[in-house]
Amino acid sequence: MEIGYREAADFLKTHDCFYVLAHHSPDGDTIGSTFALVNVLRTIGKRANARCSDEFPARYAYLYNGYKDEEFTPETIVSVDVADTHLLGKALEKYSSNIDLCIDHHISNIFYAKNTLLNAKASATCEVLAKLFFEMDFPVDDHIATCLYTGIATDTGCFKYQNTTGEAHRVTAQLLEYKVDYAWINRRLFDIKSKGRLKVEQLLSSRMEFFLNDKCAIITISKALIDESGMDESDFEGLASLTLQVDGIEVGVTLKERGDEYKVSMRSSDRVNVSAICQGFGGGGHIKAAGCTLSGELSEIKARVVEAVARGIEQDG
Amino acid sequence: MEIGYREAADFLKTHDCFYVLAHHSPDGDTIGSTFALVNVLRTIGKRANARCSDEFPARYAYLYNGYKDEEFTPETIVSVDVADTHLLGKALEKYSSNIDLCIDHHISNIFYAKNTLLNAKASATCEVLAKLFFEMDFPVDDHIATCLYTGIATDTGCFKYQNTTGEAHRVTAQLLEYKVDYAWINRRLFDIKSKGRLKVEQLLSSRMEFFLNDKCAIITISKALIDESGMDESDFEGLASLTLQVDGIEVGVTLKERGDEYKVSMRSSDRVNVSAICQGFGGGGHIKAAGCTLSGELSEIKARVVEAVARGIEQDG
Repeated sequence: MEIGYREAADFLKTHDCFYVLAHHSPDGDTIGSTFALVNVLRTIGKRANARCSDEFPARYAYLYNGYKDEEFTPETIVSVDVADTHLLGKALEKYSSNIDLCIDHHISNIFYAKNTLLNAKASATCEVLAKLFFEMDFPVDDHIATCLYTGIATDTGCFKYQNTTGEAHRVTAQLLEYKVDYAWINRRLFDIKSKGRLKVEQLLSSRMEFFLNDKCAIITISKALIDESGMDESDFEGLASLTLQVDGIEVGVTLKERGDEYKVSMRSSDRVNVSAICQGFGGGGHIKAAGCTLSGELSEIKARVVEAVARGIEQDG
Repeated sequence: MEIGYREAADFLKTHDCFYVLAHHSPDGDTIGSTFALVNVLRTIGKRANARCSDEFPARYAYLYNGYKDEEFTPETIVSVDVADTHLLGKALEKYSSNIDLCIDHHISNIFYAKNTLLNAKASATCEVLAKLFFEMDFPVDDHIATCLYTGIATDTGCFKYQNTTGEAHRVTAQLLEYKVDYAWINRRLFDIKSKGRLKVEQLLSSRMEFFLNDKCAIITISKALIDESGMDESDFEGLASLTLQVDGIEVGVTLKERGDEYKVSMRSSDRVNVSAICQGFGGGGHIKAAGCTLSGELSEIKARVVEAVARGIEQDG
């Protein structure tokens, strides 16, 4: 059942012994949401613990440092930023059919919970929670504001992306009435990388190939390159946006060797629908971020991709 | 004389034939301020032209495209985002002692104008103008909102830096009630670079040296390196922040060969006061961004700098 802010507030106030569930491979929004909600619940005298199938990454340690589990038998299960039960991950899948309340901002939410507070216009689940807390007079403090700020900053790319509505800025203004060390947080989330990551980015940027009058850039991550770099394969993840850093690029493509296939990640900087291009290869995704898998000779794969991108640019560009 | 928002509004409404002056080497805030004010003034029936000693960079073309000078004799001179008259540059220095109104946010403003509207707490002059326009009922439209958004985004590093107050977010929320293509603007301002710039960044990152258990990074831009790169010397400007991109770095140093000296730019990621360090070498600046000039052998200069940085880290880190 879809519920509103007032009903969600009533639900939280009339229940106790909460487990708050984050999604697996947790990001700043689900972690910020989890600890914001656990802390608010504890402040109003409830028992509440945080749960996640995976460990929380160290870069978000300032959100969970000092947190300790309490001893109690859970009675109320709330998921935050979890659009679908398969996103709960292995350790939490046992709760799949028993979620009492889901708080989320994903338009793809499948309404698996008994009650769902969904605001698909919100930039982040932390924006939904901030509105809930402020409008329904829950007690926000500096740490809770820090959790909520982190989720909004994460999901909006520090207020850079299309989902950064006026409402996201308005809620953030309210959060900054508390002590939030946002400059430090943003440097931590957006500016710094490990020496290893810097090396990988240099390596890939220096080997980026340009096609179609520099409207298409391709990065190839071959097994040989990974071996040569001395880095782990995991150090080569999440690099697709590197292809869009050069002025004029409309479509950026990352080809990653896996077995005898190549995993293709495509990114569009503006108008080209890369989901349509990837669908032509049996893949899919979002308009600006999509993928597919191709097999064959690398040079042939590149030629097929460039040809498809050329058609895409002609259509949409 | 320092004046308030009400008096600034009255001033604009009771004068005509405006020249609006930007500072030289114009950035997004002074350009956004200039065209926001010119457009507002024209909308309320005034004659107003934009003036700058330097050309406006092409990346801000969306702010000035379509703008045309009008023919009139200037009667009222307004400067925006200009803290001191020497910042007017060569072509506008003739107005130095005749500025009727200065609108600014720099705490270093020297009050050279007959009237000054200064809000030193504002993140950008565009934030000051947005407040002036909204609170005093000037007519804002989509283009004016786009100008103002650009200035705030530029000066806050897309809402990332310490100067991004709640008020900056609140004003931005108001601006986003107009049609502002902020995702496109932010990509243009913050994400993309030229192929040449990418090459320079790769070159410097790959040669970055680490000292003091990776708490200090040094980039050296020698004449030989510039020659070898095949790029212009101007392509090697504004690169000091590259030194802070690695996790754990407290002080980043850029050494740029100039004649038989080295120009030293120092950046602090958090707590170390680099202004104090540079003062020790006869230079100075801000706490987190400072500079000085050193001569001698490069290896000796590096050793002196590293030693001073070590002391700075010990004191403040």
